[in-house]
Amino acid sequence: MGMFIEPIGKLINEFTKLQGVGAKTAQRFAYEIINMSKEEAEEFAKSIIDCKTKIRYCKTCGNYTDQDECDICKNRSHEVICVVKEPKDVLAMEKIHEFSGVYHVLHGTLRPSENVGPKDIDIQGLVERIKKDGVKEVIMATNPDYDGEITAMYVSSVVKPLNVKVTRLAHGIPIGSDIEYTDEVTLTRAFVDRKEM
Amino acid sequence: MGMFIEPIGKLINEFTKLQGVGAKTAQRFAYEIINMSKEEAEEFAKSIIDCKTKIRYCKTCGNYTDQDECDICKNRSHEVICVVKEPKDVLAMEKIHEFSGVYHVLHGTLRPSENVGPKDIDIQGLVERIKKDGVKEVIMATNPDYDGEITAMYVSSVVKPLNVKVTRLAHGIPIGSDIEYTDEVTLTRAFVDRKEM
Repeated sequence: MGMFIEPIGKLINEFTKLQGVGAKTAQRFAYEIINMSKEEAEEFAKSIIDCKTKIRYCKTCGNYTDQDECDICKNRSHEVICVVKEPKDVLAMEKIHEFSGVYHVLHGTLRPSENVGPKDIDIQGLVERIKKDGVKEVIMATNPDYDGEITAMYVSSVVKPLNVKVTRLAHGIPIGSDIEYTDEVTLTRAFVDRKEM
Repeated sequence: MGMFIEPIGKLINEFTKLQGVGAKTAQRFAYEIINMSKEEAEEFAKSIIDCKTKIRYCKTCGNYTDQDECDICKNRSHEVICVVKEPKDVLAMEKIHEFSGVYHVLHGTLRPSENVGPKDIDIQGLVERIKKDGVKEVIMATNPDYDGEITAMYVSSVVKPLNVKVTRLAHGIPIGSDIEYTDEVTLTRAFVDRKEM
């Protein structure tokens, strides 16, 4: 980036750290920042810092919160827990407006290939919640990939003996997609799990 | 954005201020910031502030610089001045590695429809440079749109009486594009300006 003066080159470099932001986009963003008022730019910078300093994990579910316990845990029934890999999965679930229970964020999945085992993600916290909160159902909402499936199976095996119903989000052909372009694994799953009409 | 806790919602909102960043991308960026280390996030915030505090306009050409006069003005011949609308156009020109003269940033174009006239952009600075620096050629590199053309014509009329050659970047069909899909205005221009082979 030899053609950029140092502060601009530096900011461009920062923006390229964001996933999906290439050199051209980063450059455009940097120039937009320069064109902001000083107040706007300061506001932007402050909100980055605030996100790092004010946000922590909910002591109960592990989702992001700016309090000790998140609003979801505080206000909803704990009878049904939806188990997800990451905080952003909570957001995805919340967007469908179907689920009124609480969450449990594992902060990762088992990754046998990389020696990430049960102790490296928050399964223990889930077990304790089940024992303590009268949980009736655990919905496994880890991703439908290899690590996600393995994690769902493992957590299920740990949790079932605690007398709780364990369910898994359904797999199948995405709505609005095309059978022709559906990958074979998904299509096989959709076939095996077919439902009576 | 009611489903976001305040610091995250705020940061997402800041990111959506960047052109081309929608709600989903902004959300992804915000979560990436949260996943950064505190040091990385601080570095990011600092580079935004630095861009605003360290960067000013070159006293000669009006391009961004972190000094009194930019490196281009300091180190190159002032015999040929390339006139552009904005600092980012300097960057575009520099990327072709063809031009070894200096620039003059107008910081806008004439916009008759919005009452933006000659006094609102830096034409006077250009005139003074021509009188003072022994300028031999002025290359008008404003955009090939209505405002850019008008500005090029106007600046040309002001500058020509100072005994300087005024040129304009050539218009035509973009390299690698398709005649079939070239808009009529461009194609007309390409036809009228056709060159002997």
